[in-house]
Amino acid sequence: MNYSVEIKVMPHKELLDPQGKAVLGGLSNLGMQSVADVRIGKHIHLQVEAASADEARNIAEEASKKLLSNPVMEYFEIEVSQPLK
Amino acid sequence: MNYSVEIKVMPHKELLDPQGKAVLGGLSNLGMQSVADVRIGKHIHLQVEAASADEARNIAEEASKKLLSNPVMEYFEIEVSQPLK
Repeated sequence: MNYSVEIKVMPHKELLDPQGKAVLGGLSNLGMQSVADVRIGKHIHLQVEAASADEARNIAEEASKKLLSNPVMEYFEIEVSQPLK
Repeated sequence: MNYSVEIKVMPHKELLDPQGKAVLGGLSNLGMQSVADVRIGKHIHLQVEAASADEARNIAEEASKKLLSNPVMEYFEIEVSQPLK
């Protein structure tokens, strides 16, 4: 079955996020002072061929560890949705 | 109140995503042939001071349109979670 998997890769909460700080400054310059904090990461959508949702999750986890995230600086969260067919 | 807002900014479905194709090739080289498609976008986390969830959503939408996404190449989705305090 074809599973749709969403992976969120974000900088660790303890780390400074320079890209987020730059966007926060940009929003402030645009007059949007109500935004208090910005953190920016990656959103990755995978289509995975797997027999079950658990297998799809394992594949996504392996891909995240091996290629998609840098564990020193980032953490990831995986969400598997229902199979498309 | 302090709302936590998640914004997903992804390349339009009709467009080629070269970064995703590169990652797909990388996963294939690592022996993970069960991944059929990869698309990569941005995940942005905002902390917004707002009176209501609707106001927080409007602020996030304005930020997305003005700064966070390029409407020619990307679409965005906003999710507002419950206030932190």
